[in-house]
Amino acid sequence: MHDISDIEDPVVSIQGVKGSFHHIAAEYLFKGASYLERGSFDAVFNDCATERADYALVAIENSIAGSLLQNYDLLGQHNIPIIGEALLRIEHHLIAYPGVTLEEIDEIWSHPMAINQTHEFLDTLEATVIEKKDTAESVQIIRDRKLKHVAAIASEKAAEVYGMQILKRNIETDPNNYTRFLVLSKHHTLKNGQSLPFKTSLHFSLVEQPGSLAAFLQIIAEAGVNMTMIESRPQIGKPWQYDFFIDLNINANLEENAALLNKLKEQALFLQNLGSYPCFGYLKD
Amino acid sequence: MHDISDIEDPVVSIQGVKGSFHHIAAEYLFKGASYLERGSFDAVFNDCATERADYALVAIENSIAGSLLQNYDLLGQHNIPIIGEALLRIEHHLIAYPGVTLEEIDEIWSHPMAINQTHEFLDTLEATVIEKKDTAESVQIIRDRKLKHVAAIASEKAAEVYGMQILKRNIETDPNNYTRFLVLSKHHTLKNGQSLPFKTSLHFSLVEQPGSLAAFLQIIAEAGVNMTMIESRPQIGKPWQYDFFIDLNINANLEENAALLNKLKEQALFLQNLGSYPCFGYLKD
Repeated sequence: MHDISDIEDPVVSIQGVKGSFHHIAAEYLFKGASYLERGSFDAVFNDCATERADYALVAIENSIAGSLLQNYDLLGQHNIPIIGEALLRIEHHLIAYPGVTLEEIDEIWSHPMAINQTHEFLDTLEATVIEKKDTAESVQIIRDRKLKHVAAIASEKAAEVYGMQILKRNIETDPNNYTRFLVLSKHHTLKNGQSLPFKTSLHFSLVEQPGSLAAFLQIIAEAGVNMTMIESRPQIGKPWQYDFFIDLNINANLEENAALLNKLKEQALFLQNLGSYPCFGYLKD
Repeated sequence: MHDISDIEDPVVSIQGVKGSFHHIAAEYLFKGASYLERGSFDAVFNDCATERADYALVAIENSIAGSLLQNYDLLGQHNIPIIGEALLRIEHHLIAYPGVTLEEIDEIWSHPMAINQTHEFLDTLEATVIEKKDTAESVQIIRDRKLKHVAAIASEKAAEVYGMQILKRNIETDPNNYTRFLVLSKHHTLKNGQSLPFKTSLHFSLVEQPGSLAAFLQIIAEAGVNMTMIESRPQIGKPWQYDFFIDLNINANLEENAALLNKLKEQALFLQNLGSYPCFGYLKD
């Protein structure tokens, strides 16, 4: 439990319902939070833009599935600063109505990514697998409708929140399964982050000519700064022209790094600083 | 119609059924092809690995949705050479049983990506939107079950193949919607490609230290070679360590480019040449 908010009892917007991985990550970070449970990342970003929510928590990358490219676009469009980062281990469990046995299950519901990450286990069953839009919400629906022949793939938290039974634990194929979450806020800062490692996320585009990206990255290399991520995105409406997203291991708020940022700005067609923020590392009890 | 195969009546493995965008792209490229219609990209790559299929056609990037990261992983794992590239304009239509009117439709089925790309139009309707695993297959099921209250979002080709009616044309929000397809084959080459621009796709990893990617890209810049794409992927089992995929505007089979490739190999921990191939450009009648 990190208790990172600089205000009491904050309102946090998350994608999904209680018991979702966004909810689990938020519970590690915020004390006494109220949640806006949203059906789309669009709605989550809007909550933050309009300040209905003090904070938003959004997944940006999974160690198996890769980047959530749509959220990079939303970051670029909304201009809401990233103010923190945290990593959560993703564990999947098979969850059913209390008292039900595995033999009674003939249908399994979950989000396509959770289905994909539990294929080895699912292949041992005869049940029909059905894609749903959310992991925890699948558990909620099974509970509300008292479905005794359906199980869901979701988190332990989802089983707890909806009073459901874990039929089989840790059914994920690869245990090296982590999701990286970003904390966003328009006006709040985080306490407890000052002594942590900092990252800066940049969004930029370059002239289309041989060596333009190399020259840009060379400026970073000459400053001795480590780049932890690079992602290219097609520019909307201009197929096969790219924007770039990078993460650097620096705090751009410090004066020593302002010069680097200025040099990068001179080299780019445009450059947007998405935020400089502390990294809270792996969330666990 | 390009007729790119160096054998007659080739067997081509595609993801999806007839009428899918993979099928449309394949019909532009191959003459007299038989198709293996597969439910997953895994199955398509396997067809090519075992040579049940002479060629595979796989989508690798969409100008709106970005890269199909899973297919980058499959390219890295399977070592089946890329031998060609082509671009297809994606047009979405609302398709229903013949004689049905828009007013009778209360459900719309399609692949999540097609739903996402037609949101503006869908918002004008009252119908319930349901995610299915394929665009063309949704049309096929509606036809087979004679469903009069359901429409699908799919291609004109799907309406043709299954004898269905286009209720509303070009419902895509952004007309700048293109998908980039790769042609793969273990043993065949392509005729008609010699005079076209060439690309080379590389997969590599680097030591984790500041400037390692900049130094790698600097070698490419110094050779005056244009990089058209860069993508980073978390290494499986090693969260937050990355592999890279890049596309270069060169033919690595030419002697003048062999020196460049060797220099890059020296700089990388490992480097895999995924293929050097002609670019067939935009497919149209």
